[in-house]
Amino acid sequence: MPSCGWLLLALFVAALTGNTIGVVAYEQTERNCSLSPPYLPSTAVNTTLQLKKLQEQMLLLNISAYIIPGTDAHLSEYIAPRDARMAFMTGFTGSAGTAVVTQTKAALWTDSRYWVQAERQMDCNWELEKDVSISSIAEWLISEVPSGDEIGFDPFLFSLMCNHLINLESSNRSLKSVPVNLVDQVWKDREPISSHNLTRLPDRVIREFPYCLPWQKKVMQIRDQIRDNPYEPTALLLSALDETAWLFNLRGNDIPYNPFFYSYTLLTMDEIWLFLHTDRMTDELRVYLNASCNGSLCVQLKSYDTVRDYLKKYVAQPRVKVWIGTEYTNYALYEIITPEKLMTSSYSPVLTTKAVKDDTEQRILRDAHVRDAVAVIQLLMWLEKAVPEGKETELTAADYVNKCHSRGPSFETISASGPNAALAHYSPSEESSRRLTVDEMYLVDSGGQYLDGTTDITRTVHWGTPTAMQKEAFTRVLMGNIEISRTIFPSGTRGVNMEMLGRRALWEVGLNYGHGTGHGVGNYFGVHECMPSFYFPHIFQKPGYYKENDFGIRIEDVAVIVPVHTKYGHNYLTFDTVSLVPYDRKLIDTSLLSSEQLHWLNKYYETIRRLVGPELDKQGLHEEKDWMLKHTESFMMSGSSVSVCSSSLTFIALAVALLHNII
Amino acid sequence: MPSCGWLLLALFVAALTGNTIGVVAYEQTERNCSLSPPYLPSTAVNTTLQLKKLQEQMLLLNISAYIIPGTDAHLSEYIAPRDARMAFMTGFTGSAGTAVVTQTKAALWTDSRYWVQAERQMDCNWELEKDVSISSIAEWLISEVPSGDEIGFDPFLFSLMCNHLINLESSNRSLKSVPVNLVDQVWKDREPISSHNLTRLPDRVIREFPYCLPWQKKVMQIRDQIRDNPYEPTALLLSALDETAWLFNLRGNDIPYNPFFYSYTLLTMDEIWLFLHTDRMTDELRVYLNASCNGSLCVQLKSYDTVRDYLKKYVAQPRVKVWIGTEYTNYALYEIITPEKLMTSSYSPVLTTKAVKDDTEQRILRDAHVRDAVAVIQLLMWLEKAVPEGKETELTAADYVNKCHSRGPSFETISASGPNAALAHYSPSEESSRRLTVDEMYLVDSGGQYLDGTTDITRTVHWGTPTAMQKEAFTRVLMGNIEISRTIFPSGTRGVNMEMLGRRALWEVGLNYGHGTGHGVGNYFGVHECMPSFYFPHIFQKPGYYKENDFGIRIEDVAVIVPVHTKYGHNYLTFDTVSLVPYDRKLIDTSLLSSEQLHWLNKYYETIRRLVGPELDKQGLHEEKDWMLKHTESFMMSGSSVSVCSSSLTFIALAVALLHNII
Repeated sequence: MPSCGWLLLALFVAALTGNTIGVVAYEQTERNCSLSPPYLPSTAVNTTLQLKKLQEQMLLLNISAYIIPGTDAHLSEYIAPRDARMAFMTGFTGSAGTAVVTQTKAALWTDSRYWVQAERQMDCNWELEKDVSISSIAEWLISEVPSGDEIGFDPFLFSLMCNHLINLESSNRSLKSVPVNLVDQVWKDREPISSHNLTRLPDRVIREFPYCLPWQKKVMQIRDQIRDNPYEPTALLLSALDETAWLFNLRGNDIPYNPFFYSYTLLTMDEIWLFLHTDRMTDELRVYLNASCNGSLCVQLKSYDTVRDYLKKYVAQPRVKVWIGTEYTNYALYEIITPEKLMTSSYSPVLTTKAVKDDTEQRILRDAHVRDAVAVIQLLMWLEKAVPEGKETELTAADYVNKCHSRGPSFETISASGPNAALAHYSPSEESSRRLTVDEMYLVDSGGQYLDGTTDITRTVHWGTPTAMQKEAFTRVLMGNIEISRTIFPSGTRGVNMEMLGRRALWEVGLNYGHGTGHGVGNYFGVHECMPSFYFPHIFQKPGYYKENDFGIRIEDVAVIVPVHTKYGHNYLTFDTVSLVPYDRKLIDTSLLSSEQLHWLNKYYETIRRLVGPELDKQGLHEEKDWMLKHTESFMMSGSSVSVCSSSLTFIALAVALLHNII
Repeated sequence: MPSCGWLLLALFVAALTGNTIGVVAYEQTERNCSLSPPYLPSTAVNTTLQLKKLQEQMLLLNISAYIIPGTDAHLSEYIAPRDARMAFMTGFTGSAGTAVVTQTKAALWTDSRYWVQAERQMDCNWELEKDVSISSIAEWLISEVPSGDEIGFDPFLFSLMCNHLINLESSNRSLKSVPVNLVDQVWKDREPISSHNLTRLPDRVIREFPYCLPWQKKVMQIRDQIRDNPYEPTALLLSALDETAWLFNLRGNDIPYNPFFYSYTLLTMDEIWLFLHTDRMTDELRVYLNASCNGSLCVQLKSYDTVRDYLKKYVAQPRVKVWIGTEYTNYALYEIITPEKLMTSSYSPVLTTKAVKDDTEQRILRDAHVRDAVAVIQLLMWLEKAVPEGKETELTAADYVNKCHSRGPSFETISASGPNAALAHYSPSEESSRRLTVDEMYLVDSGGQYLDGTTDITRTVHWGTPTAMQKEAFTRVLMGNIEISRTIFPSGTRGVNMEMLGRRALWEVGLNYGHGTGHGVGNYFGVHECMPSFYFPHIFQKPGYYKENDFGIRIEDVAVIVPVHTKYGHNYLTFDTVSLVPYDRKLIDTSLLSSEQLHWLNKYYETIRRLVGPELDKQGLHEEKDWMLKHTESFMMSGSSVSVCSSSLTFIALAVALLHNII
C-alpha cells in the first residue's frame, strides 16, 4: 500500500514513542520548591554544576549578571542543539525564553505556552518569571544587581532591540558586550559544528520548481532592488539563515527540520562574499558558485567567523552604506556599522522577495497539501480504529514511505494526549509520555518538507466521549479558525488584525491562548517564515488554543492568500485553506456555529472530497476514502439554529479500552 | 422650553452656518493644477507670498528644506490658531499633516481623511503626497535635497520619533535643529498668546466630582508612583497640556474646546516647578497653589519659555533622573537629557492615573450623556421636520441653553451634508456650505463639555430616499459599531484589536475608512484622550467611515469599559454604550444584520427608552418623547432572516423641498 507518506511515518514514530511508558500521575509532574526538601520530578535537570561554573566565569570578568537568550547568532526561531545554551543552563527546552544568572540567583522568563514545561524541567535553582516584557527583565536586574555593576551579554545573540534596555543604562547598571560566549566556556560536551557537506538544489528542481531560480538570477533581482533604493545603499548584509540558503539555492542540515546552514552574505553591486564553514563546500559547489573567478557573479567564500572583521573593513571605506534587516541582524554586526553608513528596513529585500509565491508555486504547493492530507487521514483513521480496541500494536512504517517529493518532516512532530497537549510544544519523553486512551483528547501537530511545498497541520481528536467543556472549547477554537478563513481584508492588512477573529469566540466565554495567531509558511523551506503584512499570494497559518494542566486543543491549517472580488472595492484578499483534513465531528457543537460558519465548513468539506478523494482513489486507499467521506458529510442547517445530520454521528467509537504501542 | 441644551445650541449654529449659501457644484470644488492656467476653487489659499518669505529665511540659515508639522510644542492633537503654522503656510486646515518646503518645491503629506479638503484648500504651489509614512517624507527629501545639504526643523514641534529619520542622516543630508521657528518669523498677523486669566475648578466641583481631587492629593499620588518606580527616577516632566491642567485642577482657554493652557511641570519629591505665562495667574490662584511658600507642596511659578533652561540646570546635577512620556515629549526637551539621566515610558503616571474613571465618575458621566441625548434628539427631530418642509427658518437658540453643568462644546461641531460629509473633519464656510435637502445625507458629529462628563456622538441621517449603496454602507458601518459593542475581551487588550471588528463588514464588500477606530474620552477634559490598552473602567469611542466625493457616513458612540461575567474566565471586559440616540432607521438594511446584531440593537433601544424617556418627561418634551419612541421601536427577527416591523417605517418623510436656514 504505497503512499506519499514520509509524514505518516514521522507521525507514527512520534505517536508511538509518546506512549511506550505507563501513565505518570499529573500531580507529580511539576516541581514544588516550597517543600523542604523541594520536590523535583524526574524530568527536572540538575543545573547546580553548570551554574557554579558560569558564576566562576562571571567573577573572572567582574560581571554581576549574565543574560542568556534562547536564540542563535542569526536570531533563528529554530536553533541547533549546539546553540541551545539556555536549555543547557536551565534544563528548560522550550523554544522561547531568556535566562539571567547572578552570583546568588538564576531566573528564566518564558511565556504562558511554556510555564507547565518549565515547572517540569527546571530544578529549584531557577525562578520562573511569567512577565516576559523586556522591562520585567530590566526591573529584575535592577533589583538584583548593585548600582555601578556590569551586566554581561553576548552581542551575537541579541537583536538591535537590546537598545530598549537603555533604561538599564540610566539605572547606573551598565551593559557589557562580551564577544566570547560564557556558556560555551563551561559547556564541555557541546556538539561540534556539523561536518556534513552542503548541498545545492538539483538542476531538475530548479527547472521544475519556480521558487528556485538559478542563484545568479536571484542575485541580479536583489541587486536591482539595491540600485533602486532611494537611500542609495552600496551593500546588503544577509544575516538570517534562510536568506543565504534561498539566494544561492544551497541547503544544509545545521538546524533540525530546517534545511539551513550557518552563514552570512555581504552583497555589493560588484562582489559577493559568502561567510560559512568553508570546509563543507565540495569542489562541485565551488564550481557551481564560481568561487574561483572574479566577476560580479562570482562568490568569494570566507570563513564564517570572519564576518565581523570583513564588515568592519567594508564600512571603513568611504561612501559605502550597508542595508540590514533590523528584525534579525545581531547586535555584534550592527554595532560596528556607524550610523551614517547604516540603512535599515525591518526585512531585507531577500525576505520580502522570497515571501511572494507565484502562480506555479501556488499550484504545486496545493498538490503537496493533497498528498499530505492523505498521510494525515491514514494516521487519524488508524488511530481511531486502534485506540478503542486497546491492543498493543507494532507498526512497520516502511510501507508508508515513498518518494513523492518528500524530504522529511518540517519540524519536530508534536504528538500529545491528555495534559501533555496543554504544552503547546510538547515532545514525548520516557518520563512524560502517556498511553493513548478513549478518555483523553489527542493532539497531533505535524508538517512535511516536500520539494513542492512545506506543510503544517494540527488536528485534535477524541476517541471516546468528550466533556461538554472540551466540546465547547474545541468548537470555539474552530470558530476562530473559520472566522479567519472567511474574512475579507484589504491587501497589506497586518497579521495582528487577525488576532481578534481567532480569539473572539473563546473570549466570549473567558478562554484565551497565550501565543500569537498564525505565521508565514515557506515553500520547501522554513515552516515559520516572517510575514509582517498580508499580500497576495503569501501563505499563512491559522490559529490555536491550549489549556494548562487539563487538555490541549489546537487546530492549524495552511492557507494561501488569494484575491477576492468585492462589490465595491479593489485589491481585497481572503484565505484559501489548502490543508485538507476534516476536523473531529464529535468535538463540534454545531449549535454554537453561525450559519455562515456552518456554510464555510460544508464548503471546506466539499473541497476536501473534491481534491483528496481522487488522490485516495489513485493510491487505492478505499477504506481511507470511506473514512474521509464519512467525516466530511455535510452539516445540516435549519433557520438560524442548526443541527448535525444524524447519519454523520454513527461513526463515533465509544470503546474505552487502552492502546499500548510498541515501536 | 428649557433643556440641558448648550449642545443643541452648538449644533444649530453649525448646521445653520453650514447652509446659508447656494449649492456649489461638486466638480468645481477641487483645484486642477494640470490645466493651464490651473483651476483654483474659491476655497484655495494663495500661499505664494508666505512661501517666498519662508524660502528667504531658509536661505539666510543655509537650510535647503524646512519641515513644518501640524502640531504644537506639547504635541497636542487640537491646537490653538497661533500654532496652526502648517495651515498658515499651505492653506490646508485639516488636523493632521506635515509640510515640507525647499527653494523650488513645497509638499504636504496628509492621510485619506483629508485628501478632498487639501485639494480644495491648497493652491498649485503645493504637491499633495498621499503616503504618510515617515519613510515617504524621507525619500522625498532625499530626491529634492542635494547631498551634503541641511534640512531644518523646530525641535519643539517634533516628538522623539524624529529619531526615525536616522536613515536621512545616513543619506548625507543632515537634520538641523533650529530653535527659532522660521514660520513664526514670516507670520505677521499671528495671534498673540491669550491674555485671559487661568481659572481653577470651583471647590464645590472638587467636592462633587471625583475626577478632581484637591491638587495636593494628586501630587502625593503621583509622587508615590515616582518613589515606587524601580528605575528610581528623581523627577517627572509633564509636557502634555492635559497633564498639568489635570494635576492642578486648573483650566485655560488657549486651545479651542479644550480647557487647557500652555504649560509644563517638573515635579520632584521636594519641589514643583510650573512653567506657564505667569501674568495669567491671579493672586487668588497664587494663593491656591501656595506659590509664595517653600514646602514640598508649594508650586514655584516659572515663565513658560524657561522650561528648557530649567531642565538643563536640573539634569546638570548629579544623581538625578527625569521620567518622561515618550509619546508626547518634544525633541527640544528630550535632547537635553543625557541618556543616563533619562527614564522613559510611553505615558507618564499622570496620564495613566487620569485614564481610570472610578464608580462615581462613571455614574455621573452616564447622567451627562442622558442630558446630551435629549439635546441631540431635539436637533434631529427639528431637522427631520424642517428640511422636508423646505422653509427658511430662523431659530433663536437662547431657549435651548441652560445651566445643567454645561460648559460649551467639546470640539468644533462637524455639520456636513452631501459630499461635504465625505470630509471627515469638515467645517462649514461661506464657499463650501450647502443647503440641506431630502436628496442628500447629513452628518452631525458633536460633543459637549459638562462638569460631569464629556460627550462625543455622531449620527448620519437621510430625510428622503437613500440609495441602495448609501443604505448598505450605513448598515455596514453600524454593523462595525455593534460588533465592537458586543465583543468580550480580556483586560489589557489593545485598541488595534478593535480595528478588525469595526471594518470587517465594510471590507466584505470592498469598503474601508482611512483613519483609526476609536479613541479614549476624557471627563470634562480632552474629548480625545490617549488610551493604549483597554482596562476597566476606561472610556472608548467607537468607529466611523466616510466615502470620498459622494457622501459621508459616520456613527460614533461613547462607551464605558465594564467588567463582564464569562463562563470560564476572569477579568474580561466589554463595552457599555452611554451615548443614547437612535440611528436613522431608514438607513438600516436589517437583512444584512445577524440575529446577534439585531438583538444588540433592540436591547440598546430599550436602554434609550429606559434612560432618556424619563429625562424627556422631566423636561416636558412630549413631541420629542414620541419621536424617540417611534425611532426606538424594536426590530423583528424571524429565523435567520429578519424584517423590520412595518409600523416602524411610517415615520419616514418623503418630501423633497429645500430648507433655507438663516442664522
